[in-house]
Amino acid sequence: MGSAVAQCPHGITSHSTGNLGQNKLGYSSRCSKFPCQLDFARFGLLHQGSSAASSSDHSTEFGRRINAVPDMDDMFWDKVPTPLLDMVENPIHLKNLSVQELKGLASEIRSELSCIMSEKPNSLKASLAVVELTIAIHHVFHAPVDKILWDVGEQTYAHKILTGRRALMRMMRQKNGLSGFTSRFESEYDSFGTGHGCNSVSAGLGMAIARDIKGKRDRVVTVISNATTLAGQVYEAMSNAGYLDSNMIVILNDSRRSLHPKIEQEPKTSITALSSTLIKIQSSKSFRKFREAAKGITKRIGRGMHELAAKFDEYARGMIGPQGSTLFEELGLYYIGPVDGHNLEDLICVLQQVSSLDSMGPVLIHVITEDNHQDAECNEKIESDNPQEGMITSYDDSVSSSVQTRTYSDCLVDSLLMEAEKHKDIVLVHAGMEMEPSFQVLQETFADRFFDVGMAEQHAVTFSAGLSRGGLRPFCIIPSTFLQRAYDQVVHDVDRQKIPVRFVITSAGLVGNSGPVYCGAFDVTFMSCLPNMIVMAPSDEDELVDMVATAAQIDDRPVCFRYPRGAIVRTDHFMHPGIPLEIGKGRVLVEGKEVALLGYGAMVQNCLKAQALLSRLGIEVTVADARFCKPLDTELLTLLCENHKFLITVEEGSIGGFASHVAQFIALNGHLDGTVKWRPIVLPDSYIENGLPEEQLARAGLSGHHIAATVLRLLGRVREALLLMC
Amino acid sequence: MGSAVAQCPHGITSHSTGNLGQNKLGYSSRCSKFPCQLDFARFGLLHQGSSAASSSDHSTEFGRRINAVPDMDDMFWDKVPTPLLDMVENPIHLKNLSVQELKGLASEIRSELSCIMSEKPNSLKASLAVVELTIAIHHVFHAPVDKILWDVGEQTYAHKILTGRRALMRMMRQKNGLSGFTSRFESEYDSFGTGHGCNSVSAGLGMAIARDIKGKRDRVVTVISNATTLAGQVYEAMSNAGYLDSNMIVILNDSRRSLHPKIEQEPKTSITALSSTLIKIQSSKSFRKFREAAKGITKRIGRGMHELAAKFDEYARGMIGPQGSTLFEELGLYYIGPVDGHNLEDLICVLQQVSSLDSMGPVLIHVITEDNHQDAECNEKIESDNPQEGMITSYDDSVSSSVQTRTYSDCLVDSLLMEAEKHKDIVLVHAGMEMEPSFQVLQETFADRFFDVGMAEQHAVTFSAGLSRGGLRPFCIIPSTFLQRAYDQVVHDVDRQKIPVRFVITSAGLVGNSGPVYCGAFDVTFMSCLPNMIVMAPSDEDELVDMVATAAQIDDRPVCFRYPRGAIVRTDHFMHPGIPLEIGKGRVLVEGKEVALLGYGAMVQNCLKAQALLSRLGIEVTVADARFCKPLDTELLTLLCENHKFLITVEEGSIGGFASHVAQFIALNGHLDGTVKWRPIVLPDSYIENGLPEEQLARAGLSGHHIAATVLRLLGRVREALLLMC
Repeated sequence: MGSAVAQCPHGITSHSTGNLGQNKLGYSSRCSKFPCQLDFARFGLLHQGSSAASSSDHSTEFGRRINAVPDMDDMFWDKVPTPLLDMVENPIHLKNLSVQELKGLASEIRSELSCIMSEKPNSLKASLAVVELTIAIHHVFHAPVDKILWDVGEQTYAHKILTGRRALMRMMRQKNGLSGFTSRFESEYDSFGTGHGCNSVSAGLGMAIARDIKGKRDRVVTVISNATTLAGQVYEAMSNAGYLDSNMIVILNDSRRSLHPKIEQEPKTSITALSSTLIKIQSSKSFRKFREAAKGITKRIGRGMHELAAKFDEYARGMIGPQGSTLFEELGLYYIGPVDGHNLEDLICVLQQVSSLDSMGPVLIHVITEDNHQDAECNEKIESDNPQEGMITSYDDSVSSSVQTRTYSDCLVDSLLMEAEKHKDIVLVHAGMEMEPSFQVLQETFADRFFDVGMAEQHAVTFSAGLSRGGLRPFCIIPSTFLQRAYDQVVHDVDRQKIPVRFVITSAGLVGNSGPVYCGAFDVTFMSCLPNMIVMAPSDEDELVDMVATAAQIDDRPVCFRYPRGAIVRTDHFMHPGIPLEIGKGRVLVEGKEVALLGYGAMVQNCLKAQALLSRLGIEVTVADARFCKPLDTELLTLLCENHKFLITVEEGSIGGFASHVAQFIALNGHLDGTVKWRPIVLPDSYIENGLPEEQLARAGLSGHHIAATVLRLLGRVREALLLMC
Repeated sequence: MGSAVAQCPHGITSHSTGNLGQNKLGYSSRCSKFPCQLDFARFGLLHQGSSAASSSDHSTEFGRRINAVPDMDDMFWDKVPTPLLDMVENPIHLKNLSVQELKGLASEIRSELSCIMSEKPNSLKASLAVVELTIAIHHVFHAPVDKILWDVGEQTYAHKILTGRRALMRMMRQKNGLSGFTSRFESEYDSFGTGHGCNSVSAGLGMAIARDIKGKRDRVVTVISNATTLAGQVYEAMSNAGYLDSNMIVILNDSRRSLHPKIEQEPKTSITALSSTLIKIQSSKSFRKFREAAKGITKRIGRGMHELAAKFDEYARGMIGPQGSTLFEELGLYYIGPVDGHNLEDLICVLQQVSSLDSMGPVLIHVITEDNHQDAECNEKIESDNPQEGMITSYDDSVSSSVQTRTYSDCLVDSLLMEAEKHKDIVLVHAGMEMEPSFQVLQETFADRFFDVGMAEQHAVTFSAGLSRGGLRPFCIIPSTFLQRAYDQVVHDVDRQKIPVRFVITSAGLVGNSGPVYCGAFDVTFMSCLPNMIVMAPSDEDELVDMVATAAQIDDRPVCFRYPRGAIVRTDHFMHPGIPLEIGKGRVLVEGKEVALLGYGAMVQNCLKAQALLSRLGIEVTVADARFCKPLDTELLTLLCENHKFLITVEEGSIGGFASHVAQFIALNGHLDGTVKWRPIVLPDSYIENGLPEEQLARAGLSGHHIAATVLRLLGRVREALLLMC
């Protein structure tokens, strides 16, 4: 540790040009502190409030977070020493480290990441791939004045460690912990939030244009991954960047890792042309334009080029390795690469040269990284800890704790396999950022009838409509939150044309520690306003199976059904063959009086929990399962209204969904004119942060206890309501 | 006409290979009919019902439409003779026409289109550009067995004429008339609906894959335009087509006409890289792969190549004209072209060769067309009729009837210009299929601060978020219906990150003869469920101006406001400077009793109309202007509930919007427990077909008369309600 401290003298300021002077977290005021780990040990408890809902004053928020750490215990003492990393409290501390020291730092971050994230093998791999790249970026550029944008949460862990959040890393994606993504509420070094991927070039271009308009000179660096290049938005953004010709640096982190490992193993090594471009060796192509540009750069650098500049020249001339530039050049980006993403000298050299140029327009630096690039001992540890290589990241959380648990998705898979026996024309289209592990069975079984298009939801929906018009029976499987990306296609290519496409909306409602980025809150609202759409939701796994059968049978209009992430209701579930449901018919599960609980989808279970709680207090309520949001079971609604004083609708969705449809019907039919008193329970009007599923439900006021308390309050038994919530 | 009849003997079947035998509209059963125009004269009146809501039995629907024509009068007799066209009742009648006759046919269609569409100069231009292409496609391929898909409505007019809808062309985009787009409900020759553009490659690929799975051999031909290549979905679709490698033919109708004429005139001749690719001359590039493939084709055709095959070879070898293939080749499409889109020999030759190949994978045929390619006399006529060259098509309808009328968009423009004086950091981003003529002033005035990204709505929204994070004050102007295409970006790149972007939602609600494709029905529903969004709507032009000022001032969260297409309320409008409104505050316009009408946005005017009608009957109702859907004016709501027997909410939007927010608040606060009776008036649960704005409002039940009738019925004055509606 001693040598590292010696590398960090007081008062050092960066040698680089640029806006460093504006950095409010000055190096000199910090470097004299004892290595950060000890400071962290003195921190208090993390602030409880949801940061997203608070003010936009980032530094305050940032401070609140950083000055508050959970019980650290021996978190830092049971691992290998990290003398260099201990010196780095924020990126400015990287400025004067030598390349050799930066290499050491990379190794320390790698080891730290391996320790912290050993339970999340895929996140870990993605994170390890960009350690050198992250160091090089923060060594060369001056965040937060220079804007660094990321595309995918998993790329950002080294960035988080280097930007003052090291001590909080173990609390990632947990209640009150760090976000799994960048967040402008979490750090001033996160200039834009990652989330659904594919947004960083658009956002970065906006910042670059804003900078130009304001006459500033800070740099904009966006890192994208090869997975996000599947998305149309990236194309729209690059294309527009090429046109607007503003200075910005796009770094393509080509980890050669697909989110679809099965497909990758097949002869066709990529699922889109862009990623295949990256892999192709096109040594025979002519790069005249490119070389000319490179020559120009060399001139500007001057005749007395030093070694690194010469290396950059080699990259720019395309003399090192294979090229994949054509597509990017057509899009108007100046291509440099491919650069070895684990060679710090090369990375720093290229970034420094690019950053020193004043008017290059948008540049794409193609960086090749390897998931498995890691120290030998870490590697072994990871391999032994995690036999499930290739598992999908975001689903780790929910699955890892109970690997044996059967999920709704498992039921969907079994049910689709059964329906495919009946209907030979069933085809499956899947889109979204990543695929649930359960669906790999479908991919294997259906082979030529399963189309995973990746992050191309718009295409997925219209493609499904085309399959339907071609005489097949498509199911289009998309997580609720990603269906948002194809909303217009759902409206105009499916619903308005009344084309039978069956939307399977996965991860509906709250998603535990996947947090607000993956939360599926809005689908009932935005799907049930569509005139031709049948909208339904199963209350348990049996109904899910029946709804798959129902959807398979409906062939004259579109239909959708949503189900939550996570475990099914009954662990001893016996898979029965699906029986098509009568369209627009719900059912009464428990008959009671005075109060009717009308649940939609998974919330029927919570209504039953409330009913059980109330029953113990001598209150017998009715519980009904709506099954359909559209068409509504108007007979059931009329019955419930006529025979009860109170009707409570319960759903795990935003305002504007099921409750609104119920309210409109009962209002127009006079049931609200004194017959029944209606209370809607919906998701609250906020983004619910990470937490365990039950915690999130409680925060949303959707637990059985909350529902029961609502009933008690309506019945005037306020004290019992309060007792119930204690 | 005689010679044409001679070309059409009984019992002729096509010489082409393929699925012609499966065509249920056999040639021989039809060709003996007297030329179609006389048949049309015998037709009855068009069926009244909305076809979109009816069954999916297309041929029945098709028959209903075709067997029903409005009063024809002398529609066909006052124009130049069209002997060839008179022979063509459906595409099969093109099969045996010689190239010379097809050229004559093109000329006749051109003249017919010029007569029919003389009031719509831009639609006409786009239509004229593809006359030869359409003829060539229908000559070579066998619709409806072969699937022909189009991307943009205006490309399809010649297609409509050739597929049995000639007599209905003058009724296009009118009540009960033809759709301005293809529609599967209108004709079996329309295999997929155009609408928002950019969907045809996705849909076509779906059909191609369906065909492969079903073991059929029909061909899929999709025509795209250079304007739609701006959209990310086209990239997603082409990319996936390249990967799946199914046989399909993509024809790029490169009319070199942008939807953004102003930008086109600038040095940068295109707004994206793809379209610039099309224009670039890249004669020096190597096309080895491509030439090899071309050689293969030549071999298959055999040594005794005739003249046309030789020509194809020239195209495939890239020997004619400039090439723009690289990007498409990277996307995995086999590039052929560019082909002169007005040279019927070349078009037929290329299409025949391509259609005769069995396993080519996806092919892109690059066809260059000219908007101004037309017969001299037509040209003159159009020029003299239509001085407003470059005007935007979809807005023709509403504007042409009253050119002098000041629109809401005009007010927006003036207001933005005023705000930009106050806030120097205002920037404007525009996206959507086309730009309203009003906005050209903005484009000219703001110059470097106006960004029209075209059909790249996803990028537009995140780009705006980036501009905001860069310290500017962006307004993002998107029509309601196209905002659907960027919904996920609104949620995650703006709202969840609480970034101040100001969404100006244009063309909200019903849009007259632009019909359901451009109808903005859903925005209030899908925007007001977002936690951080402020959602408002002006009731007239003064409020619009104030809301622009309000939005400019809000700088801590996103905000949106919607306004309708068309004329402002007061013709003598004096433009006052905008005064920021108090957030979440509505206002009472008329004080009455018993019944409160609470209008949202433009519907406040209809509430006032209802109030005037009712006043004449001695009923004094309250009229309130909500202004905000979110946050709601809860004080105002409480007042209205406490002082009235009935509360009627009125909005020009779907279920799940304003009414739902009101209902939730008043239900949770007990106002619905007997205090007030609430009735929501929203857009009906159907797509409302073309019609005049007032007709559409009446059909939607949103006119002043409808609202007044609702009040009368609630008050038990049913007879007066009926009288009012007579």
